[in-house]
Amino acid sequence: MTASEQSTPVATVTACLIIIGNEILSGRTQDANLAHIARTLNGWGVRLMHARVIPDIEDTIVSTLNECRAAFDYVFTTGGIGPTHDDITADCVAKAFGVPLVEHPEAIAILETYYPKGELTVARRRMARVPQGGDLVPNPVSKAPGFRIGNVFVLAGVPAIMRAQLHETREHISGGLPMVSRTVTAFVGESRVAVQLEELQDRYTDVEIGSYPFWKDGKLGTSLVFRGTDPARLEAGADELKAILRDLGTEPIDGEP
Amino acid sequence: MTASEQSTPVATVTACLIIIGNEILSGRTQDANLAHIARTLNGWGVRLMHARVIPDIEDTIVSTLNECRAAFDYVFTTGGIGPTHDDITADCVAKAFGVPLVEHPEAIAILETYYPKGELTVARRRMARVPQGGDLVPNPVSKAPGFRIGNVFVLAGVPAIMRAQLHETREHISGGLPMVSRTVTAFVGESRVAVQLEELQDRYTDVEIGSYPFWKDGKLGTSLVFRGTDPARLEAGADELKAILRDLGTEPIDGEP
Repeated sequence: MTASEQSTPVATVTACLIIIGNEILSGRTQDANLAHIARTLNGWGVRLMHARVIPDIEDTIVSTLNECRAAFDYVFTTGGIGPTHDDITADCVAKAFGVPLVEHPEAIAILETYYPKGELTVARRRMARVPQGGDLVPNPVSKAPGFRIGNVFVLAGVPAIMRAQLHETREHISGGLPMVSRTVTAFVGESRVAVQLEELQDRYTDVEIGSYPFWKDGKLGTSLVFRGTDPARLEAGADELKAILRDLGTEPIDGEP
Repeated sequence: MTASEQSTPVATVTACLIIIGNEILSGRTQDANLAHIARTLNGWGVRLMHARVIPDIEDTIVSTLNECRAAFDYVFTTGGIGPTHDDITADCVAKAFGVPLVEHPEAIAILETYYPKGELTVARRRMARVPQGGDLVPNPVSKAPGFRIGNVFVLAGVPAIMRAQLHETREHISGGLPMVSRTVTAFVGESRVAVQLEELQDRYTDVEIGSYPFWKDGKLGTSLVFRGTDPARLEAGADELKAILRDLGTEPIDGEP
């Protein structure tokens, strides 16, 4: 009996990431959040299906939010929730949901505890503004919280803060079966195995097979990645592939090179 | 006389990047192309305004291509142009443009020279397929070319190949004034300077001012980035900001920390 026979089939639970910030689109800052969010969500049974990187422009943020929250089960945003003039994400989320942006009493209480008495300035109070009806996402690192409204989770852009906040969203996410992967590597070019791989993919319609070439120590190789929700099927596919590679005269390696 | 008085105003020339590949969305592979493309285009006077990361799903790729090529001056795609079953970008671009996908004679000639006689297999010939009417984008690294059709440039996902191909597209890009940037750093939290920064931004409407907090050696700091097409205006804004920071009792640093 395979894992898929044991489990009730679960529809794929999907997510979209909206990365907000001119600094990413200008090339100043390398995004370090997408891969972490993708892997974390995979473990929770949620597939990141789409990501967008958009500038600090209100109309763009509002329309992107509305398009994506209708199209995916969950939407995560990163960036634009600090105290400065270019931090407009909270304003845009409120506009997208058609609700006022209000100071959240709990957020004010958190910031009042964090800053010395009298130093919760107007600029810092900006970080307590949440679209009406939204709940806080705690920030164990630097206190200023993110928030959640509907299926949208609004997180910081700074990776250490984003990671801590993402962890705090866990209880609000209902995922399906976790996505798992199984990698086989061979030191052959991917074109050597392309025909056999297509034939394998045609038989393993419940497994996603990806082929990723690389160079290592001057040698050309290919990582062949099986992804899906049923570990037994990934193992069966990997075994077939390993036999194919041996027939081609190359010894497969389990895992990444 | 400032640079802006010397030059005829040029409308912003815009670009969109479409990153195609399940391996990015699964978190297996960290994208290393967006920042490089953004910085290269900045130098050519083209602003990357938008990026999307999408899976290897035909309908998604086709609709994203058609939406983005209508909305931006240039569209670049990365990924999905290799010889395996999961390389469907060329097929999707042809569908998006409503033209057949055909073997490009020059591409076949390039591959025939590259591979030993008799080794240009069916799988490898896939890499010579180009939407009818498209021109090749040379690949100095591993020969299999990218292509260009209309305002869409289709490049490889492997960073070394993508970079070489991007370089080859230069002659086909008509940019505006190059985007330049000027950074001032201070070891203060961004909330300390938020009010003054907003006032500065209100007066420098032709300059984009970004505020990016960081921690370095256990100290909190903020990089303040001025971006625009007129170096004299960036310098003037930076000078004003440096005076503001000195008034706050902190010595500004030119450039990144």
